[in-house]
Amino acid sequence: MATPVKVYGPPLSTAVSRVLACVLEKDVQFQLIPINMSKGEHKSSDFLKIQPFGQVPAFQDEDLSLFESRAICRYLCEKHPGKGNTKLYGTNPLVKASIDQWLEAEGQTFNPPSSILMFQLVFAPRMKIKQDQTLINKNEEKLAKVLEVYEKRLGESRFLAGDDFSLADLSHLPNAHYLVNATDKGELFTSKKNVGRWWAEITSRDSWKKVVEMQKQKN
Amino acid sequence: MATPVKVYGPPLSTAVSRVLACVLEKDVQFQLIPINMSKGEHKSSDFLKIQPFGQVPAFQDEDLSLFESRAICRYLCEKHPGKGNTKLYGTNPLVKASIDQWLEAEGQTFNPPSSILMFQLVFAPRMKIKQDQTLINKNEEKLAKVLEVYEKRLGESRFLAGDDFSLADLSHLPNAHYLVNATDKGELFTSKKNVGRWWAEITSRDSWKKVVEMQKQKN
Ligand SMILES: N[C@@H](CCC(=O)N[C@@H](CS)C(=O)NCC(=O)O)C(=O)O
Ligand SMILES: N[C@@H](CCC(=O)N[C@@H](CS)C(=O)NCC(=O)O)C(=O)O
Repeated sequence: MATPVKVYGPPLSTAVSRVLACVLEKDVQFQLIPINMSKGEHKSSDFLKIQPFGQVPAFQDEDLSLFESRAICRYLCEKHPGKGNTKLYGTNPLVKASIDQWLEAEGQTFNPPSSILMFQLVFAPRMKIKQDQTLINKNEEKLAKVLEVYEKRLGESRFLAGDDFSLADLSHLPNAHYLVNATDKGELFTSKKNVGRWWAEITSRDSWKKVVEMQKQKN
Repeated sequence: MATPVKVYGPPLSTAVSRVLACVLEKDVQFQLIPINMSKGEHKSSDFLKIQPFGQVPAFQDEDLSLFESRAICRYLCEKHPGKGNTKLYGTNPLVKASIDQWLEAEGQTFNPPSSILMFQLVFAPRMKIKQDQTLINKNEEKLAKVLEVYEKRLGESRFLAGDDFSLADLSHLPNAHYLVNATDKGELFTSKKNVGRWWAEITSRDSWKKVVEMQKQKN
Protein backbone atom coordinates (compact mmCIF):
# COMPACT_ATOMS: atom_id res chain seq x y z
CA MET A 1 0.00 0.00 0.00
CA ALA A 2 1.21 3.50 -0.76
CA THR A 3 2.41 5.58 2.18
CA PRO A 4 -0.21 8.24 2.95
CA VAL A 5 0.78 11.77 1.97
CA LYS A 6 1.25 14.18 4.87
CA VAL A 7 -0.63 17.46 5.16
CA TYR A 8 0.71 19.77 7.87
CA GLY A 9 -1.53 22.36 9.49
CA PRO A 10 -4.96 22.96 11.01
CA PRO A 11 -8.08 22.40 8.84
CA LEU A 12 -9.36 25.77 10.04
CA SER A 13 -6.66 27.41 7.92
CA THR A 14 -8.07 28.24 4.50
CA ALA A 15 -4.94 27.18 2.64
CA VAL A 16 -4.83 23.87 4.52
CA SER A 17 -8.52 23.22 3.83
CA ARG A 18 -7.91 23.80 0.10
CA VAL A 19 -5.42 20.92 0.10
CA LEU A 20 -7.73 18.73 2.21
CA ALA A 21 -10.59 19.24 -0.24
CA CYS A 22 -8.22 18.17 -3.02
CA VAL A 23 -6.89 14.98 -1.35
CA LEU A 24 -10.51 14.00 -0.59
CA GLU A 25 -11.64 14.66 -4.18
CA LYS A 26 -8.69 12.64 -5.47
CA ASP A 27 -9.29 9.88 -2.92
CA VAL A 28 -5.62 9.97 -1.93
CA GLN A 29 -4.75 8.51 1.48
CA PHE A 30 -3.49 11.21 3.78
CA GLN A 31 -2.36 11.88 7.28
CA LEU A 32 -3.04 15.23 8.90
CA ILE A 33 -0.13 16.45 10.99
CA PRO A 34 -1.21 19.05 13.55
CA ILE A 35 0.76 22.28 13.71
CA ASN A 36 -0.02 24.39 16.75
CA MET A 37 0.05 27.88 15.34
CA SER A 38 -0.77 29.60 18.62
CA LYS A 39 2.45 28.07 19.95
CA GLY A 40 4.27 29.30 16.83
CA GLU A 41 5.11 25.80 15.59
CA HIS A 42 4.88 27.09 12.00
CA LYS A 43 7.94 29.27 12.70
CA SER A 44 10.06 26.45 14.21
CA SER A 45 13.30 25.61 12.45
CA ASP A 46 12.07 22.09 11.62
CA PHE A 47 8.93 23.41 9.99
CA LEU A 48 10.84 26.12 8.10
CA LYS A 49 12.80 23.31 6.40
CA ILE A 50 9.64 22.25 4.58
CA GLN A 51 7.84 25.63 4.41
CA PRO A 52 10.49 28.36 4.30
CA PHE A 53 7.95 31.19 4.61
CA GLY A 54 6.67 29.76 7.91
CA GLN A 55 3.10 29.28 6.75
CA VAL A 56 0.69 26.36 6.58
CA PRO A 57 0.14 24.08 4.75
CA ALA A 58 3.24 22.06 4.12
CA PHE A 59 3.00 18.73 2.36
CA GLN A 60 5.05 15.58 1.95
CA ASP A 61 4.75 12.66 -0.42
CA GLU A 62 7.52 10.17 0.34
CA ASP A 63 10.73 12.18 -0.21
CA LEU A 64 9.06 15.16 -1.85
CA SER A 65 8.21 18.23 0.23
CA LEU A 66 5.99 20.95 -1.17
CA PHE A 67 4.35 24.17 -0.06
CA GLU A 68 1.79 26.57 -1.61
CA SER A 69 -1.71 25.12 -1.49
CA ARG A 70 -2.50 25.57 -5.19
CA ALA A 71 0.81 23.99 -6.24
CA ILE A 72 0.11 21.02 -3.95
CA CYS A 73 -3.35 20.61 -5.53
CA ARG A 74 -1.87 20.66 -9.03
CA TYR A 75 0.74 18.09 -8.02
CA LEU A 76 -1.88 15.73 -6.55
CA CYS A 77 -3.87 15.84 -9.79
CA GLU A 78 -0.81 15.37 -12.01
CA LYS A 79 0.45 12.46 -9.91
CA HIS A 80 -2.91 10.66 -9.80
CA PRO A 81 -4.69 11.33 -13.09
CA GLY A 82 -6.73 8.12 -12.81
CA LYS A 83 -7.66 8.27 -9.14
CA GLY A 84 -10.79 9.72 -7.50
CA ASN A 85 -12.22 12.70 -9.41
CA THR A 86 -10.39 12.28 -12.72
CA LYS A 87 -11.72 15.55 -14.13
CA LEU A 88 -10.49 17.78 -11.32
CA TYR A 89 -7.61 19.18 -13.40
CA GLY A 90 -9.08 18.43 -16.82
CA THR A 91 -8.51 15.63 -19.26
CA ASN A 92 -7.37 17.65 -22.27
CA PRO A 93 -5.10 20.66 -22.78
CA LEU A 94 -7.89 23.13 -23.58
CA VAL A 95 -9.91 22.31 -20.47
CA LYS A 96 -6.72 22.37 -18.42
CA ALA A 97 -5.87 25.83 -19.75
CA SER A 98 -9.33 27.02 -18.73
CA ILE A 99 -8.90 25.51 -15.26
CA ASP A 100 -5.50 27.18 -14.89
CA GLN A 101 -7.00 30.48 -15.99
CA TRP A 102 -9.78 30.43 -13.38
CA LEU A 103 -7.50 28.99 -10.72
CA GLU A 104 -5.18 31.95 -11.32
CA ALA A 105 -8.17 34.31 -11.25
CA GLU A 106 -9.00 32.85 -7.82
CA GLY A 107 -5.44 33.27 -6.53
CA GLN A 108 -4.83 36.69 -8.05
CA THR A 109 -8.22 38.39 -8.09
CA PHE A 110 -10.66 36.64 -5.74
CA ASN A 111 -8.26 35.72 -2.94
CA PRO A 112 -6.88 39.19 -2.11
CA PRO A 113 -10.17 40.95 -1.30
CA SER A 114 -11.83 37.84 0.13
CA SER A 115 -8.95 37.07 2.49
CA ILE A 116 -8.75 40.67 3.69
CA LEU A 117 -12.52 40.67 4.37
CA MET A 118 -12.24 37.33 6.13
CA PHE A 119 -9.44 38.57 8.32
CA GLN A 120 -11.19 41.83 9.16
CA LEU A 121 -14.64 40.35 9.76
CA VAL A 122 -13.88 36.94 11.25
CA PHE A 123 -10.40 36.84 12.74
CA ALA A 124 -9.75 40.43 13.85
CA PRO A 125 -12.68 40.33 16.35
CA ARG A 126 -11.54 36.92 17.67
CA MET A 127 -8.01 38.24 18.08
CA LYS A 128 -9.26 41.50 19.61
CA ILE A 129 -7.72 43.51 16.76
CA LYS A 130 -9.53 46.71 15.82
CA GLN A 131 -11.38 46.44 12.50
CA ASP A 132 -10.47 48.82 9.69
CA GLN A 133 -13.78 49.98 8.18
CA THR A 134 -12.14 51.74 5.20
CA LEU A 135 -10.33 48.53 4.29
CA ILE A 136 -13.54 46.52 4.69
CA ASN A 137 -15.49 48.86 2.39
CA LYS A 138 -12.76 48.95 -0.24
CA ASN A 139 -12.41 45.20 -0.37
CA GLU A 140 -16.13 44.52 -0.31
CA GLU A 141 -16.37 46.72 -3.39
CA LYS A 142 -13.49 44.85 -5.06
CA LEU A 143 -15.02 41.47 -4.26
CA ALA A 144 -18.44 42.56 -5.53
CA LYS A 145 -16.81 43.45 -8.89
CA VAL A 146 -15.11 40.07 -9.10
CA LEU A 147 -18.40 38.31 -8.35
CA GLU A 148 -20.13 40.28 -11.11
CA VAL A 149 -17.67 38.74 -13.56
CA TYR A 150 -18.38 35.30 -12.05
CA GLU A 151 -22.13 35.89 -12.29
CA LYS A 152 -21.80 36.43 -16.01
CA ARG A 153 -19.44 33.50 -16.51
CA LEU A 154 -21.64 31.14 -14.49
CA GLY A 155 -24.60 32.16 -16.61
CA GLU A 156 -22.78 30.65 -19.61
CA SER A 157 -21.08 27.72 -17.94
CA ARG A 158 -22.10 25.32 -15.14
CA PHE A 159 -18.71 25.61 -13.42
CA LEU A 160 -16.00 28.25 -13.76
CA ALA A 161 -13.77 26.32 -16.15
CA GLY A 162 -16.50 24.44 -18.02
CA ASP A 163 -19.00 21.62 -17.57
CA ASP A 164 -17.24 19.90 -14.69
CA PHE A 165 -16.30 20.76 -11.14
CA SER A 166 -12.56 21.47 -11.12
CA LEU A 167 -9.66 22.79 -9.04
CA ALA A 168 -10.78 26.27 -10.09
CA ASP A 169 -14.10 25.91 -8.25
CA LEU A 170 -12.58 23.99 -5.35
CA SER A 171 -10.03 26.69 -4.70
CA HIS A 172 -12.79 29.21 -3.91
CA LEU A 173 -14.39 27.10 -1.17
CA PRO A 174 -12.19 28.00 1.83
CA ASN A 175 -12.48 31.79 1.80
CA ALA A 176 -16.06 31.89 0.57
CA HIS A 177 -17.09 29.40 3.27
CA TYR A 178 -16.03 31.86 5.98
CA LEU A 179 -17.61 34.83 4.26
CA VAL A 180 -20.93 33.04 3.72
CA ASN A 181 -21.13 31.34 7.11
CA ALA A 182 -19.34 33.61 9.55
CA THR A 183 -20.03 37.17 8.31
CA ASP A 184 -22.95 39.26 7.12
CA LYS A 185 -21.52 39.39 3.58
CA GLY A 186 -22.87 36.01 2.47
CA GLU A 187 -25.44 37.65 0.22
CA LEU A 188 -22.64 38.76 -2.06
CA PHE A 189 -22.69 35.09 -3.10
CA THR A 190 -26.10 33.70 -2.26
CA SER A 191 -28.27 36.51 -3.60
CA LYS A 192 -26.82 36.18 -7.12
CA LYS A 193 -28.72 33.83 -9.41
CA ASN A 194 -25.79 32.02 -11.00
CA VAL A 195 -23.17 32.45 -8.29
CA GLY A 196 -25.78 31.29 -5.74
CA ARG A 197 -26.60 28.19 -7.81
CA TRP A 198 -22.88 27.43 -8.21
CA TRP A 199 -22.19 27.99 -4.52
CA ALA A 200 -24.96 25.57 -3.51
CA GLU A 201 -23.59 22.99 -5.91
CA ILE A 202 -19.91 23.17 -4.99
CA THR A 203 -20.54 23.20 -1.22
CA SER A 204 -22.70 20.09 -1.46
CA ARG A 205 -19.79 17.91 -2.55
CA ASP A 206 -18.87 15.13 -0.10
CA SER A 207 -15.24 16.24 -0.09
CA TRP A 208 -16.09 19.72 1.12
CA LYS A 209 -18.64 18.48 3.64
CA LYS A 210 -15.88 16.34 5.15
CA VAL A 211 -13.54 19.31 5.34
CA VAL A 212 -16.21 21.31 7.18
CA GLU A 213 -16.60 18.40 9.61
CA MET A 214 -12.85 18.36 10.19
CA GLN A 215 -12.95 22.10 10.85
CA LYS A 216 -15.51 21.53 13.60
CA GLN A 217 -13.33 19.07 15.42
CA LYS A 218 -10.73 20.32 17.88
CA ASN A 219 -7.49 20.99 16.06
CA MET B 1 2.78 27.55 -41.03
CA ALA B 2 0.98 27.91 -37.73
CA THR B 3 -1.00 31.11 -37.17
CA PRO B 4 0.91 33.31 -34.72
CA VAL B 5 -0.61 33.55 -31.26
CA LYS B 6 -1.92 36.99 -30.30
CA VAL B 7 -0.79 38.84 -27.18
CA TYR B 8 -2.92 41.90 -26.36
CA GLY B 9 -1.47 44.75 -24.35
CA PRO B 10 1.54 47.05 -23.96
CA PRO B 11 4.96 45.48 -23.18
CA LEU B 12 5.37 48.09 -20.42
CA SER B 13 2.70 46.24 -18.45
CA THR B 14 4.38 43.73 -16.16
CA ALA B 15 1.79 41.02 -16.78
CA VAL B 16 2.09 41.48 -20.56
CA SER B 17 5.89 41.35 -20.38
CA ARG B 18 5.68 38.05 -18.44
CA VAL B 19 3.83 36.51 -21.37
CA LEU B 20 6.22 38.06 -23.90
CA ALA B 21 9.23 36.59 -22.08
CA CYS B 22 7.51 33.21 -22.26
CA VAL B 23 6.64 33.28 -25.99
CA LEU B 24 10.23 34.32 -26.71
CA GLU B 25 11.69 31.53 -24.52
CA LYS B 26 9.39 29.02 -26.23
CA ASP B 27 10.18 30.41 -29.67
CA VAL B 28 6.47 30.63 -30.49
CA GLN B 29 5.47 33.00 -33.27
CA PHE B 30 3.41 35.84 -31.90
CA GLN B 31 1.72 39.04 -32.86
CA LEU B 32 1.51 41.89 -30.38
CA ILE B 33 -1.85 43.66 -30.49
CA PRO B 34 -1.67 47.16 -29.00
CA ILE B 35 -4.25 48.10 -26.40
CA ASN B 36 -4.31 51.79 -25.60
CA MET B 37 -4.88 51.79 -21.88
CA SER B 38 -4.88 55.57 -21.53
CA LYS B 39 -7.87 55.56 -23.87
CA GLY B 40 -9.47 52.83 -21.75
CA GLU B 41 -9.42 50.23 -24.53
CA HIS B 42 -8.98 47.50 -21.91
CA LYS B 43 -12.48 48.34 -20.61
CA SER B 44 -14.17 48.25 -24.04
CA SER B 45 -16.92 45.68 -24.54
CA ASP B 46 -14.92 43.88 -27.22
CA PHE B 47 -11.91 43.51 -24.97
CA LEU B 48 -14.05 42.41 -22.01
CA LYS B 49 -15.17 39.46 -24.12
CA ILE B 50 -11.66 38.04 -23.96
CA GLN B 51 -10.56 39.47 -20.58
CA PRO B 52 -13.66 39.87 -18.41
CA PHE B 53 -11.79 41.71 -15.63
CA GLY B 54 -10.71 44.42 -18.08
CA GLN B 55 -6.98 43.90 -17.59
CA VAL B 56 -4.05 43.16 -19.85
CA PRO B 57 -2.81 40.77 -21.11
CA ALA B 58 -5.35 38.84 -23.10
CA PHE B 59 -4.21 36.05 -25.38
CA GLN B 60 -5.51 34.09 -28.35
CA ASP B 61 -4.33 30.92 -30.02
CA GLU B 62 -6.62 30.15 -32.94
CA ASP B 63 -10.08 29.75 -31.31
CA LEU B 64 -8.81 29.70 -27.74
CA SER B 65 -8.89 32.89 -25.67
CA LEU B 66 -7.08 33.06 -22.35
CA PHE B 67 -6.27 35.58 -19.64
CA GLU B 68 -4.08 35.57 -16.52
CA SER B 69 -0.39 35.86 -17.42
CA ARG B 70 0.77 32.83 -15.44
CA ALA B 71 -1.99 30.63 -16.89
CA ILE B 72 -1.02 31.75 -20.40
CA CYS B 73 2.63 30.86 -19.69
CA ARG B 74 1.64 27.40 -18.43
CA TYR B 75 -0.50 26.85 -21.51
CA LEU B 76 2.30 27.83 -23.90
CA CYS B 77 4.64 25.32 -22.24
CA GLU B 78 2.05 22.52 -22.18
CA LYS B 79 1.14 23.11 -25.82
CA HIS B 80 4.74 23.22 -27.06
CA PRO B 81 6.77 20.82 -24.89
CA GLY B 82 9.34 20.28 -27.64
CA LYS B 83 9.73 23.87 -28.85
CA GLY B 84 12.25 26.50 -27.77
CA ASN B 85 13.32 26.16 -24.14
CA THR B 86 12.06 22.65 -23.44
CA LYS B 87 12.89 22.84 -19.73
CA LEU B 88 10.88 25.97 -18.99
CA TYR B 89 8.08 24.05 -17.27
CA GLY B 90 10.09 20.94 -16.38
CA THR B 91 10.42 17.58 -18.03
CA ASN B 92 9.32 15.37 -15.15
CA PRO B 93 6.57 15.57 -12.49
CA LEU B 94 8.91 16.32 -9.58
CA VAL B 95 10.62 19.23 -11.31
CA LYS B 96 7.22 20.48 -12.49
CA ALA B 97 5.90 20.39 -8.92
CA SER B 98 8.89 22.44 -7.81
CA ILE B 99 8.31 24.95 -10.62
CA ASP B 100 4.62 25.24 -9.69
CA GLN B 101 5.58 25.75 -6.06
CA TRP B 102 7.95 28.64 -6.79
CA LEU B 103 5.66 30.08 -9.46
CA GLU B 104 2.89 30.17 -6.84
CA ALA B 105 5.32 31.70 -4.34
CA GLU B 106 5.96 34.42 -6.91
CA GLY B 107 2.25 35.04 -7.52
CA GLN B 108 1.18 34.81 -3.89
CA THR B 109 4.14 36.09 -1.89
CA PHE B 110 6.55 38.05 -4.09
CA ASN B 111 4.04 39.78 -6.35
CA PRO B 112 1.88 41.53 -3.73
CA PRO B 113 4.62 43.58 -2.01
CA SER B 114 6.67 44.06 -5.19
CA SER B 115 3.72 45.34 -7.20
CA ILE B 116 2.65 47.72 -4.43
CA LEU B 117 6.20 49.08 -4.23
CA MET B 118 6.37 49.39 -7.98
CA PHE B 119 3.12 51.28 -8.11
CA GLN B 120 4.06 53.60 -5.25
CA LEU B 121 7.62 54.28 -6.37
CA VAL B 122 7.36 54.23 -10.17
CA PHE B 123 3.81 54.84 -11.30
CA ALA B 124 2.31 57.05 -8.59
CA PRO B 125 4.83 59.86 -9.28
CA ARG B 126 4.26 59.57 -13.06
CA MET B 127 0.50 59.72 -12.49
CA LYS B 128 0.88 62.56 -9.97
CA ILE B 129 -0.67 60.42 -7.23
CA LYS B 130 0.59 61.11 -3.70
CA GLN B 131 2.89 58.36 -2.40
CA ASP B 132 1.88 56.51 0.79
CA GLN B 133 5.05 56.24 2.87
CA THR B 134 3.52 53.87 5.44
CA LEU B 135 2.52 51.47 2.67
CA ILE B 136 5.99 51.75 1.11
CA ASN B 137 7.72 50.92 4.39
CA LYS B 138 5.41 48.02 5.18
CA ASN B 139 5.85 46.44 1.76
CA GLU B 140 9.57 47.00 1.62
CA GLU B 141 9.77 45.06 4.87
CA LYS B 142 7.58 42.27 3.47
CA LEU B 143 9.63 42.07 0.28
CA ALA B 144 12.88 41.99 2.24
CA LYS B 145 11.59 38.95 4.16
CA VAL B 146 10.63 37.17 0.94
CA LEU B 147 14.07 37.86 -0.52
CA GLU B 148 15.73 36.43 2.61
CA VAL B 149 13.96 33.14 1.86
CA TYR B 150 15.13 33.39 -1.76
CA GLU B 151 18.70 34.13 -0.64
CA LYS B 152 18.76 30.88 1.30
CA ARG B 153 17.11 28.88 -1.48
CA LEU B 154 19.45 30.28 -4.14
CA GLY B 155 22.40 29.31 -1.96
CA GLU B 156 21.33 25.68 -2.39
CA SER B 157 20.04 25.78 -5.95
CA ARG B 158 21.14 27.61 -9.08
CA PHE B 159 17.58 28.62 -9.96
CA LEU B 160 14.46 28.74 -7.79
CA ALA B 161 12.99 25.43 -8.87
CA GLY B 162 16.26 23.56 -9.50
CA ASP B 163 19.20 23.41 -11.88
CA ASP B 164 17.44 25.06 -14.82
CA PHE B 165 15.90 28.42 -15.59
CA SER B 166 12.13 27.94 -15.46
CA LEU B 167 8.78 29.74 -15.46
CA ALA B 168 9.31 30.29 -11.74
CA ASP B 169 12.36 32.50 -12.37
CA LEU B 170 10.89 34.11 -15.47
CA SER B 171 7.79 35.20 -13.62
CA HIS B 172 9.87 37.40 -11.28
CA LEU B 173 11.46 39.42 -14.08
CA PRO B 174 8.75 42.03 -14.75
CA ASN B 175 8.28 43.46 -11.25
CA ALA B 176 11.90 43.09 -10.21
CA HIS B 177 13.05 44.83 -13.39
CA TYR B 178 11.16 48.00 -12.39
CA LEU B 179 12.34 47.84 -8.79
CA VAL B 180 15.98 47.36 -9.77
CA ASN B 181 16.06 49.85 -12.64
CA ALA B 182 13.54 52.54 -11.78
CA THR B 183 13.68 52.87 -7.97
CA ASP B 184 16.25 53.16 -5.20
CA LYS B 185 15.29 49.71 -3.85
CA GLY B 186 17.44 47.73 -6.31
CA GLU B 187 19.90 46.80 -3.59
CA LEU B 188 17.27 44.57 -2.05
CA PHE B 189 18.18 42.29 -4.94
CA THR B 190 21.66 43.21 -6.09
CA SER B 191 23.38 43.46 -2.71
CA LYS B 192 22.51 39.86 -1.82
CA LYS B 193 25.12 37.28 -2.77
CA ASN B 194 22.84 34.58 -4.18
CA VAL B 195 19.87 36.69 -5.22
CA GLY B 196 22.29 39.09 -6.93
CA ARG B 197 23.97 36.24 -8.81
CA TRP B 198 20.57 34.84 -9.84
CA TRP B 199 19.31 38.26 -10.89
CA ALA B 200 22.34 38.84 -13.13
CA GLU B 201 21.84 35.44 -14.70
CA ILE B 202 18.11 35.60 -15.38
CA THR B 203 18.23 39.15 -16.77
CA SER B 204 20.95 38.21 -19.22
CA ARG B 205 18.71 35.83 -21.14
CA ASP B 206 18.06 36.83 -24.75
CA SER B 207 14.31 36.54 -24.24
CA TRP B 208 14.29 39.09 -21.45
CA LYS B 209 16.67 41.44 -23.25
CA LYS B 210 14.24 41.46 -26.17
CA VAL B 211 11.33 42.27 -23.86
CA VAL B 212 13.29 45.20 -22.42
CA GLU B 213 13.94 46.41 -25.99
CA MET B 214 10.22 46.17 -26.75
CA GLN B 215 9.47 48.18 -23.61
CA LYS B 216 11.72 50.97 -24.88
CA GLN B 217 9.83 51.27 -28.14
CA LYS B 218 6.75 53.46 -28.32
CA ASN B 219 3.69 51.42 -27.42
N1 LIG C 1 -0.08 31.14 -0.53
C1 LIG C 1 -0.03 30.27 0.62
C2 LIG C 1 -0.68 30.97 1.79
C3 LIG C 1 -0.47 30.27 3.07
C4 LIG C 1 -1.02 31.09 4.23
O1 LIG C 1 -1.27 32.30 4.10
N2 LIG C 1 -1.22 30.43 5.37
C5 LIG C 1 -1.69 31.11 6.55
C6 LIG C 1 -2.88 30.36 7.15
S1 LIG C 1 -4.26 30.29 6.01
C7 LIG C 1 -0.57 31.14 7.56
O2 LIG C 1 0.19 30.19 7.70
N3 LIG C 1 -0.44 32.26 8.30
C8 LIG C 1 0.55 32.42 9.33
C9 LIG C 1 1.66 33.34 8.94
O3 LIG C 1 1.66 33.86 7.80
O4 LIG C 1 2.52 33.57 9.79
C10 LIG C 1 -0.74 28.96 0.29
O5 LIG C 1 -1.72 29.02 -0.48
O6 LIG C 1 -0.32 27.89 0.76
N1 LIG D 1 -3.32 38.65 -12.57
C1 LIG D 1 -3.36 39.35 -13.86
C2 LIG D 1 -3.01 40.78 -13.58
C3 LIG D 1 -3.23 41.66 -14.76
C4 LIG D 1 -3.02 43.12 -14.41
O1 LIG D 1 -3.00 43.50 -13.22
N2 LIG D 1 -2.84 43.95 -15.45
C5 LIG D 1 -2.68 45.37 -15.23
C6 LIG D 1 -1.46 45.88 -15.99
S1 LIG D 1 0.03 45.08 -15.43
C7 LIG D 1 -3.92 46.09 -15.76
O2 LIG D 1 -4.48 45.70 -16.79
N3 LIG D 1 -4.36 47.13 -15.07
C8 LIG D 1 -5.48 47.91 -15.47
C9 LIG D 1 -6.70 47.67 -14.61
O3 LIG D 1 -6.65 46.84 -13.68
O4 LIG D 1 -7.70 48.37 -14.85
C10 LIG D 1 -2.34 38.71 -14.81
O5 LIG D 1 -1.32 38.23 -14.32
O6 LIG D 1 -2.59 38.65 -16.02
